[in-house]
Amino acid sequence: MTFKDLVRNNRSYRRFDEQFVIDRSTLADLIELTRFAASGRNVQPLKYFLSNDPNLNEQIFSTLAWAGYLKEWPGPVKGERPSAYIIVLLDHHIAHNYFCDDGIAMQNILLGAVEKGLGGCIIQSINKARLTKIVQLASNLEIIDVVALGKPVETVVLTDVGPDGDIRYFRDADGVHFVPKRSLDELIVK
Amino acid sequence: MTFKDLVRNNRSYRRFDEQFVIDRSTLADLIELTRFAASGRNVQPLKYFLSNDPNLNEQIFSTLAWAGYLKEWPGPVKGERPSAYIIVLLDHHIAHNYFCDDGIAMQNILLGAVEKGLGGCIIQSINKARLTKIVQLASNLEIIDVVALGKPVETVVLTDVGPDGDIRYFRDADGVHFVPKRSLDELIVK
Repeated sequence: MTFKDLVRNNRSYRRFDEQFVIDRSTLADLIELTRFAASGRNVQPLKYFLSNDPNLNEQIFSTLAWAGYLKEWPGPVKGERPSAYIIVLLDHHIAHNYFCDDGIAMQNILLGAVEKGLGGCIIQSINKARLTKIVQLASNLEIIDVVALGKPVETVVLTDVGPDGDIRYFRDADGVHFVPKRSLDELIVK
Repeated sequence: MTFKDLVRNNRSYRRFDEQFVIDRSTLADLIELTRFAASGRNVQPLKYFLSNDPNLNEQIFSTLAWAGYLKEWPGPVKGERPSAYIIVLLDHHIAHNYFCDDGIAMQNILLGAVEKGLGGCIIQSINKARLTKIVQLASNLEIIDVVALGKPVETVVLTDVGPDGDIRYFRDADGVHFVPKRSLDELIVK
């Protein structure tokens, strides 16, 4: 697979085959990809909490908000929820800032997941106070992002942003998820 | 090349064969990889200014600080400077925040560059006021990051962080650049 194909196949997936098991060694392989990522001043202040336990997954799920533009959709139903989560943490014993380290690290995680036939979604709409209690974090660890992972069971299609400029994703009657993307011409200033 | 190899080969390179030409279509290919990247709420507020012009490159170079830990090294000498730059911009006409979109987009750019036999470095230590004037940005565009790109001419070696916990990169007498990375065990909280 070319890197461009990998990038194209790396969609934000929000519906999964929940029965599919992602084992801890697979999650550790994905964290290994973040070890080799660039880090501002090479400080590497990010840590990771892994869950592939169905009971813990259910509790984590309850702290997350899904797909803000799909007002009628409260998130994936039971059976279509993620098989695993990676909670991205800032270790304040190391540093109080993390520049764009999280985006870099999570992109490695998600692209690595796609190569393994998995997929996922970055979630930043998190009840952090509740999730901190659920996973019993030490006081030096701050939740930054959550990456949901699973075996995708939805079709995501990229489209062009139309003349009205609307970038909101939407679903058709068959549940196909469409994501409008800006044109190359619009992105390149000069 | 497996994705893991691509990630391992994607080091922060700071010395290049400056004579090597990166044409605009190559830069546009890399921006195309950012089009397919995840964006918080899919807003896609980032834009890109491209330079592969030697004169403009020299002016851009003068606004950047290189490798903070290498106190004796003011940055690459003439002949080893980047062949191109991608300046990452936030378009305030679209949004005033960008979550971790820049890390995601720049990781796509850099991994795509490595696949093409190129390499680069994310720079956030930028004289933004001067660079804004040099590239004559419209007032709605704010400089966020700079990605320097070229044909690498240096060897970068990953090592483990030692017991003293020192994460500062360093060079040996032959100019080999060593980057200490934390262990997988240290990164995984649970």
